[in-house]
Amino acid sequence: MTPPDPYTDLDTNGRSNPWTTLSRRTIYENPWILVREDQVLRPDGQPGIYGVVQYKNRAVGVLPVDDQGRIWLVGQHRYPLDAYSWEIPEGGCPTSETPEETALRELREETGLVAAQLELISTAHLSNSVSDELAYIFRATGLTEGPGDPEGCERIAIRRVEWDEAHAMLRRGEITDSMSVIALLEEAVRRLEARLGGESG
Amino acid sequence: MTPPDPYTDLDTNGRSNPWTTLSRRTIYENPWILVREDQVLRPDGQPGIYGVVQYKNRAVGVLPVDDQGRIWLVGQHRYPLDAYSWEIPEGGCPTSETPEETALRELREETGLVAAQLELISTAHLSNSVSDELAYIFRATGLTEGPGDPEGCERIAIRRVEWDEAHAMLRRGEITDSMSVIALLEEAVRRLEARLGGESG
Repeated sequence: MTPPDPYTDLDTNGRSNPWTTLSRRTIYENPWILVREDQVLRPDGQPGIYGVVQYKNRAVGVLPVDDQGRIWLVGQHRYPLDAYSWEIPEGGCPTSETPEETALRELREETGLVAAQLELISTAHLSNSVSDELAYIFRATGLTEGPGDPEGCERIAIRRVEWDEAHAMLRRGEITDSMSVIALLEEAVRRLEARLGGESG
Repeated sequence: MTPPDPYTDLDTNGRSNPWTTLSRRTIYENPWILVREDQVLRPDGQPGIYGVVQYKNRAVGVLPVDDQGRIWLVGQHRYPLDAYSWEIPEGGCPTSETPEETALRELREETGLVAAQLELISTAHLSNSVSDELAYIFRATGLTEGPGDPEGCERIAIRRVEWDEAHAMLRRGEITDSMSVIALLEEAVRRLEARLGGESG
């Protein structure tokens, strides 16, 4: 008989919320985010503050994969980074839409593509030390091409690339947007598992 | 000769910054973030605002992989989500540290593990529509166990799990932190590529 493993015995520790919120104050609000500062007692009982960024929309990203296995990327200048970024089509999902509706709408607006099938491949909290932002990432297939319709706050370039090129861009650090990184890694896993004949990884 | 492909000809469009910043105003600042609101002209020339969250630290995550291929996860209550989250060890990298130093320090503080090797496996902008947060994600190997030393704002549980269990947690949606999702997907790709005998995916 082996002795108990200290690591596997800890998994129910600390499940209750060790933070106490003493007060909340809204600092800033715009149509996309609300910033608040909470007065808290930390897990060690000491007083402190916590600045939280609440998102009004969920984030949605969609990886378009055509019948030949090629994918689409969109390029745009990302204002908070002051840098150009190649990404999968993405947008905000207001409460009036489902993530699926947002995915189809953003795909059409940014690339002109209409997707026959949509598969949810990942959900992620993008930055949980400060924000509550939740992302839904889809894979779109059965694509047909039509006219795009970008929003006024977007000037978007479009590239259709072979999978190997997209994967190489990721490996070279040319794609850094977290939702795009997750989508491309999920796609890499899917293609590797297919090559292994459907065994699970 | 095939006709020019409209999608591959667009990749240099829009590379210049289409936004104009008219003014910047700091809204809020704490030791971790600075929130500002800019008055801007959008890409279509219309006036607007842009709320930006600047991070004072870079984000660092580290996937610990032991000699048997098992990995470590840490569990904690994430205040902005008001939810418990199983993740890889993570922490903030101040300007006084390199990301590698932060990775080794956070690994030791949160798990007690000391790593002989550290490999950078991904860099990502976690939420580039609003913030400039940049994450460095490492894979740590050559692990030896020692005492942990969590910070006062952390109450951390530790689990050492088989790879198949970690991958299953990801697949079941039980791991949603974006840095952890990226780390586990990178590990999945690595293991699948190894099973394919070193061919690239």
